Amino acid sequence: MTSQTTPGKEPMTTQRPKLHLVDTTLRDGMSSVSHQFTTQNVADIARGLDAGGVELIEVAHGIGLGASSINYGFAAATDAEYVRAARDAAENADIAVLYVPGVATLPDLQKAIDAGIGTVRVAVHSTEADCAQQPIEWAKDKGLRVMSFLMMSHKLEAGPLAEQGAKLASYGADVVYVVDSAGYLVPSSIAARVAALRQAIPGDIGIHTHNNLGVAIGNVLAGVENGATWVDGSLRGLGASAGNAQTEVMAATLERAGWVTGADIWPLIDTAEHVLAPLMKDPQIIDETALLLGYAGVYSTFFHPTKRAAAKYGVPARDILLELGRRGIIGGQEDMIVDVAAELAGRALPDQAGSRLQKATVGVAR
Amino acid sequence: MTSQTTPGKEPMTTQRPKLHLVDTTLRDGMSSVSHQFTTQNVADIARGLDAGGVELIEVAHGIGLGASSINYGFAAATDAEYVRAARDAAENADIAVLYVPGVATLPDLQKAIDAGIGTVRVAVHSTEADCAQQPIEWAKDKGLRVMSFLMMSHKLEAGPLAEQGAKLASYGADVVYVVDSAGYLVPSSIAARVAALRQAIPGDIGIHTHNNLGVAIGNVLAGVENGATWVDGSLRGLGASAGNAQTEVMAATLERAGWVTGADIWPLIDTAEHVLAPLMKDPQIIDETALLLGYAGVYSTFFHPTKRAAAKYGVPARDILLELGRRGIIGGQEDMIVDVAAELAGRALPDQAGSRLQKATVGVAR
Repeated sequence: MTSQTTPGKEPMTTQRPKLHLVDTTLRDGMSSVSHQFTTQNVADIARGLDAGGVELIEVAHGIGLGASSINYGFAAATDAEYVRAARDAAENADIAVLYVPGVATLPDLQKAIDAGIGTVRVAVHSTEADCAQQPIEWAKDKGLRVMSFLMMSHKLEAGPLAEQGAKLASYGADVVYVVDSAGYLVPSSIAARVAALRQAIPGDIGIHTHNNLGVAIGNVLAGVENGATWVDGSLRGLGASAGNAQTEVMAATLERAGWVTGADIWPLIDTAEHVLAPLMKDPQIIDETALLLGYAGVYSTFFHPTKRAAAKYGVPARDILLELGRRGIIGGQEDMIVDVAAELAGRALPDQAGSRLQKATVGVAR
Repeated sequence: MTSQTTPGKEPMTTQRPKLHLVDTTLRDGMSSVSHQFTTQNVADIARGLDAGGVELIEVAHGIGLGASSINYGFAAATDAEYVRAARDAAENADIAVLYVPGVATLPDLQKAIDAGIGTVRVAVHSTEADCAQQPIEWAKDKGLRVMSFLMMSHKLEAGPLAEQGAKLASYGADVVYVVDSAGYLVPSSIAARVAALRQAIPGDIGIHTHNNLGVAIGNVLAGVENGATWVDGSLRGLGASAGNAQTEVMAATLERAGWVTGADIWPLIDTAEHVLAPLMKDPQIIDETALLLGYAGVYSTFFHPTKRAAAKYGVPARDILLELGRRGIIGGQEDMIVDVAAELAGRALPDQAGSRLQKATVGVAR
């Protein structure tokens, strides 16, 4: 006979900081419902998140503040209406909006302040911290809590990424986020980036993950083990591409791993199961599209144009995506898709392109 | 300007062993389709797995060899027919069956040998290694490769689990598996168990995970970082409860993390997307049921009887599950469900049971 133990008894370190749960179902998840949550949906979900101990609820258009337009798709309500709906529903949680310079403007942010946000999250490409200076300084001046996102954090190694993060902190960001927009990073690469950032800035670090490689929550664990204290998720994982770390699961898993989050998982589970799930068009799974986007490290917006170019030039879509990833394409460079497709079509027969390109790309990507 | 790097360039250690991919879509995944894959389905899927570099393909009834019965449900074909279908379809991969003492018999195993398996996987509860001695010794005598599963590995701490694993190795098991049947473990607890096993046995270690806490692949990474070299998955994650580590994603993620698996991910992705997905009744997601089973650490077979008892006694199903997990219930003790429900109904009003029990359980489970 062997003595049985209490299941899952994990060593506790008393020095561990309390973690802060952030939920972005009502922002990142908006993209998955074509920005069509109603203010009633937002109120119902925000109420459940608040009851579940989520400290910060991000809301409004999936692309961020001011994105509701013919270009990015019109949302079912204005940013201010979403903010008010969430603020009125939440007793304790703070409300945030995402601010992408070039999409949002400072007057948009003022309207969100008037509607009741306490936090803004300023998101810039990981190599372009400079672009965040003006909105961060402006928002700090207005008394907001400011978080700042290093989007596509996989594009920089740990050291250079931390330098960019240090800039964000120097502008006044209270929390600097490692954001794995493409779902490309694995726990060891998250660990290295968060650890470097921890050395570079005095303030808090956040982690925002996507599940394309199936490690959204594994990456969150790697993040908090290396000093991140703000963790993003979304109910049922609802979000762009393969979705985010699944909030209700993440809360349970962090607890099992010995972390204190202040979460009450039951309202989170109830809200995911009975409020959100019926509103979802599709389950959040890792299908071919989601996996390829993460594997190649490209934004989800590139997928459909790539499929069209693949059909036109007779080149496998996966080869185009991998080549785009290798070239480090970023949002706004969608015209490169056709160039790459044409180039691949010219230099290899379609049925040879797969194996040749795969080998080349794998060699580079390791 | 900051210099951009090649995305995801991970440090490679040349000492890292090659990993062996194992797929159990056609065994663990059988439970999700009520054991109704046809031999044609098995051949099609096995062909894709083989082309994708999977070294070992586990097939037959979801509960294992000899389980096709009125008790566990009848499969669409016999074990031997499934083995032959997979063996004939695979050029390189070996074929395995799961042997659960008490369900399978040695004559069943002889039939599987005659049909063409090269490997048997003998699965026992983590505290009961003794039960594996007879079939392991018998199978080694027949020239089979033998792997042995420590099921419900969360029930033992690392040290006692390694002692059980050492017994399996002493009987002749070539590979000893840490099996997180309930999807309860997190990466740190997997790491501790695999590392302890590594000290205790000279042979190979395998890792079989479930995704109830969203860390099936995170746990695989923790396993291989600590010395496991055999990794189980299933296409699209198809498997009991929240499903398994998703084979095609796991292969891509291991590659990104710097491991060599010999996988060609394209046939794996194609088979998942175009062969398996159309056969799936439901997507493999983490819903309330799946999360609660993992959080409580109980087998998936307990869920429906628990729901019935919950309705009868007016006690939340989640409270019953958590209490069952706390008591360390194992398969065969289903009668305890009603006892627990009755006890909870007697000692607390239903609407109070939730918070009280949750606090008590969380206190113990950390």
